[in-house]
Amino acid sequence: MADSEPIQNPPTVQPAATEGAEAPKGPSKSELKKRAKEEEKARKAAEKAAKQAELDAQKAAAEVDYATEFYGKLPLNKSQSRPRRERVQIAALTPSMDGQTVLLRARVQTSRAQGSKMVFLNLRQRTDSVQALLSVAPEKVSKQMAKWAAGLQIESIVLAEGVVKKSPEIIKSATVGDVELHLTQLHLISGLETVLPFTVDDANRPEPPETEAEDVQFKRVLLDTRLNNRVVDLRTQTNQAVFKLQHGIGHLFREYLDGKGFIEIHSPKLQGAATESGASVFQVSYFKGKAFLAQSPQLAKQMAIAADFERVYEIGPVFRAEDSNTHRHMTEFIGLDLEMAIEEHYHEVMELLDGLFLHMFRSLKQKYASEIETVRKQFPADEFKWREGPEGTLKLSFKEAVNILVEDGVPREDLDDIDTTNEKRLGRLVRAKYDTDYFIIDKFPMALRPFYTMPDPEDPTVSNSYDFFMRGEEILSGAQRVHDATLLAEQMRGKGVDPASMSSYLDAFKLGCPPHGGGGIGLERVLMLFLKLNNIRRASLFPRDPKRLEP
Amino acid sequence: MADSEPIQNPPTVQPAATEGAEAPKGPSKSELKKRAKEEEKARKAAEKAAKQAELDAQKAAAEVDYATEFYGKLPLNKSQSRPRRERVQIAALTPSMDGQTVLLRARVQTSRAQGSKMVFLNLRQRTDSVQALLSVAPEKVSKQMAKWAAGLQIESIVLAEGVVKKSPEIIKSATVGDVELHLTQLHLISGLETVLPFTVDDANRPEPPETEAEDVQFKRVLLDTRLNNRVVDLRTQTNQAVFKLQHGIGHLFREYLDGKGFIEIHSPKLQGAATESGASVFQVSYFKGKAFLAQSPQLAKQMAIAADFERVYEIGPVFRAEDSNTHRHMTEFIGLDLEMAIEEHYHEVMELLDGLFLHMFRSLKQKYASEIETVRKQFPADEFKWREGPEGTLKLSFKEAVNILVEDGVPREDLDDIDTTNEKRLGRLVRAKYDTDYFIIDKFPMALRPFYTMPDPEDPTVSNSYDFFMRGEEILSGAQRVHDATLLAEQMRGKGVDPASMSSYLDAFKLGCPPHGGGGIGLERVLMLFLKLNNIRRASLFPRDPKRLEP
Repeated sequence: MADSEPIQNPPTVQPAATEGAEAPKGPSKSELKKRAKEEEKARKAAEKAAKQAELDAQKAAAEVDYATEFYGKLPLNKSQSRPRRERVQIAALTPSMDGQTVLLRARVQTSRAQGSKMVFLNLRQRTDSVQALLSVAPEKVSKQMAKWAAGLQIESIVLAEGVVKKSPEIIKSATVGDVELHLTQLHLISGLETVLPFTVDDANRPEPPETEAEDVQFKRVLLDTRLNNRVVDLRTQTNQAVFKLQHGIGHLFREYLDGKGFIEIHSPKLQGAATESGASVFQVSYFKGKAFLAQSPQLAKQMAIAADFERVYEIGPVFRAEDSNTHRHMTEFIGLDLEMAIEEHYHEVMELLDGLFLHMFRSLKQKYASEIETVRKQFPADEFKWREGPEGTLKLSFKEAVNILVEDGVPREDLDDIDTTNEKRLGRLVRAKYDTDYFIIDKFPMALRPFYTMPDPEDPTVSNSYDFFMRGEEILSGAQRVHDATLLAEQMRGKGVDPASMSSYLDAFKLGCPPHGGGGIGLERVLMLFLKLNNIRRASLFPRDPKRLEP
Repeated sequence: MADSEPIQNPPTVQPAATEGAEAPKGPSKSELKKRAKEEEKARKAAEKAAKQAELDAQKAAAEVDYATEFYGKLPLNKSQSRPRRERVQIAALTPSMDGQTVLLRARVQTSRAQGSKMVFLNLRQRTDSVQALLSVAPEKVSKQMAKWAAGLQIESIVLAEGVVKKSPEIIKSATVGDVELHLTQLHLISGLETVLPFTVDDANRPEPPETEAEDVQFKRVLLDTRLNNRVVDLRTQTNQAVFKLQHGIGHLFREYLDGKGFIEIHSPKLQGAATESGASVFQVSYFKGKAFLAQSPQLAKQMAIAADFERVYEIGPVFRAEDSNTHRHMTEFIGLDLEMAIEEHYHEVMELLDGLFLHMFRSLKQKYASEIETVRKQFPADEFKWREGPEGTLKLSFKEAVNILVEDGVPREDLDDIDTTNEKRLGRLVRAKYDTDYFIIDKFPMALRPFYTMPDPEDPTVSNSYDFFMRGEEILSGAQRVHDATLLAEQMRGKGVDPASMSSYLDAFKLGCPPHGGGGIGLERVLMLFLKLNNIRRASLFPRDPKRLEP
């Protein structure tokens, strides 16, 4: 426990006992001589004692804790008072504030005593840290205060008051390296009541280089430990940056689409029927009946188009009851979905989606450069590359993609579909040939797509559908949809879905619906692949997979 | 079916039969006379026939459909071509475009023939509509084309080409009333394959005035019919406006919080344990085990604070397995949640939340004035009122709120809690006394709040918690939370929750957590109460309640 109370040592000055000697009557000469000797002895002893007492008093005085007000554990904050004292952010500290006294709340990242008179603390707020120095000084910082500060458990939350000092040389252990804080007060706001599973410093160290077999024993154990103690793991500067980027992706997604006349919708996750595609759905006990968790907002967003919403997007959880324990599958993830009416051709959607991704990539690089840099330190990776300039994003047809793989030696008969391994291989080939980590594959075979996909006008074995790729992994799947009820019912039956089981969906098209298309993006996949985090769980706050429902 | 093909009438000109008569030998004089008479008769008949034939030819020529290219059903759009012809929005049409030819996709809201030569159509896009006129004209608009247009089923989607004409007088039946469109081409993009359950015009009519008993038979049937056919119901101008406002609220929520240093998080809806509060949770089959649907992001957002995120918000679905069939309960709704570390006092959060609501109210009024006006037409309501100016938002303590009700005659012993009826009564009293529809109640009794609520520093029967109200209904509940693991475990036990059942949550506080507070807002409630829609289902795209999982 770090929350030990400061020990108050009251002054223990004891006045030396001095007693007047009483004169006896008629002593002998030798007696007198003896007495004189004794008196001399006593005098000397008294003198010595007095001297000692003086020394003792001096020493005691030196140990009086004149700093008791300046440190210690604060009472539990129940909003007892509101002094409205300004508090600063570490990131805002600059050499120009030299000499100013500031107050801030921070974590103790490290604490290191130098002798008994000096303590160095590294104070942390999110992605920022600063060095703080506590140095014994008369009437200000007592030895007791220094001892208490040196004993603070790391990850404690403190309220620190100090004077900003321009640092003579850059402090490399802190992100704000050009100043340090000379502490005048240090109080504990919240201590730890348990042992840290690992330190934030340890958790922030660079990962071992990626290997082809990504689930090596060493790494998996490490990730699981992190995830089991996610609250501590999330405190690393890396993770603080990762989730600022996650926020950024959502923000940029909305910003772009708001500018294109889209509105945000919220569709229900509880569904009356288990439908849509072959993917398994979770069943929910619903009062006396049952319900199912939506595996995407597909049906709802298409119904919104039939309801004249024209252009909609949704950011929300999607659920997949697939027992896949891979680096890129979770049972719950965030879908960035959109759907829009088209005027002439589904490439209107595909091009808008491309514009969306370019907007995201450019803005992330510009506005989140320092966060990306922070993540790079732990997850070294080549910078994510995409094509700018007049030639635009690389667009391959499915056939062309297959040909590239065949040329590289993959047997054509293996390529009715492009599986995960071949996807990655294609990503490497494309990167080598076209110098891009981002590309689009258009015109997937109809057999690979769900029943609501519009077939090509000329070749019914091909569909008006596309996937988008980052670093050789699919991050978006989309298509023109069937907006004609008759063709839709026909394609349902063709895929073994009973149209009667989806009547309210089918009705939406019987009531007239414009031609439309859209796509679904996996938020965590984009984040993982942009930063090359190598495991999707790192891109999710509290990930869920077949084996994990906690924390 | 509205998708009847245009009937092509090929010219049916039949040349009149003319035959030369052959002369016989030796006829008698009477015979000659008779013959002459007959010849004269035949000549006249032939003359008449020729004249008739000429007339027939003329008539047939008049009925040739010279407009076949200009109307009819288009083939199913499978992205066959991409002519890249510009299309316009109805809202963008202005008198300054007089004489311009434009192309647009729209719904047929109404279609009315005037004689056989003129058809008036009301064309609709979302909240906008314009009058279109189809008028028979040689070589341009044929009678057949007019007949076909007059027969278009309402709610069909058409591609209309026409010339913009400044309207001599404002057309009241259209939202864009200062122009009309003189159609030159009209094609069917998507017709109906079923009977409309009701017309969008009917669904857009003003609601009967609100009664105290809100579930009158008439209204309930009406709402159910709407919800059963939600795709058509959502097409009303009212609903198009309602969901633009829903989008607006989410946008303003994020805009305000982004500006205050918050980041957006996404927490899992699948939970390992059924926890948090007394509210019932839905159980999910999770592979060989079970999971539960989160009834709020409460635990996750607090854990994000323990993980140093400082200020977080989340917009996402929350699930309540409560069998409540009222005007304001759903089993799934959208929570606008936030949580933030506090420096000194929980009123920092309460004041930020107040600032958030004022930002939302002001911006909605400013930026969504026309949408609010559109909704008012169907749902007449007093304008939503809040206090501006130096005195700020009305803040009452729970005790003060109780006193207001007691003064109005409510027995004090009924007011351990303020139930829904008394909430509404309080709302009316506050409106009468303070002229505001928006106020805050602070300092709720501890007994009414969940275990994670921080008690008042002086009176442990009272808590550092607040509710926000709009028109006498709660729309936000929030508080300072307990950030100390020992006190938290104690309060859990006090409310009958086993701390062991929530160990990963409790661990977050054992690992050090700053003082913090937050709140949860019901998106649909804010929307319903701001617009006075009287039933929360109207504020949800596809509402879910104990009896409704479709559409």
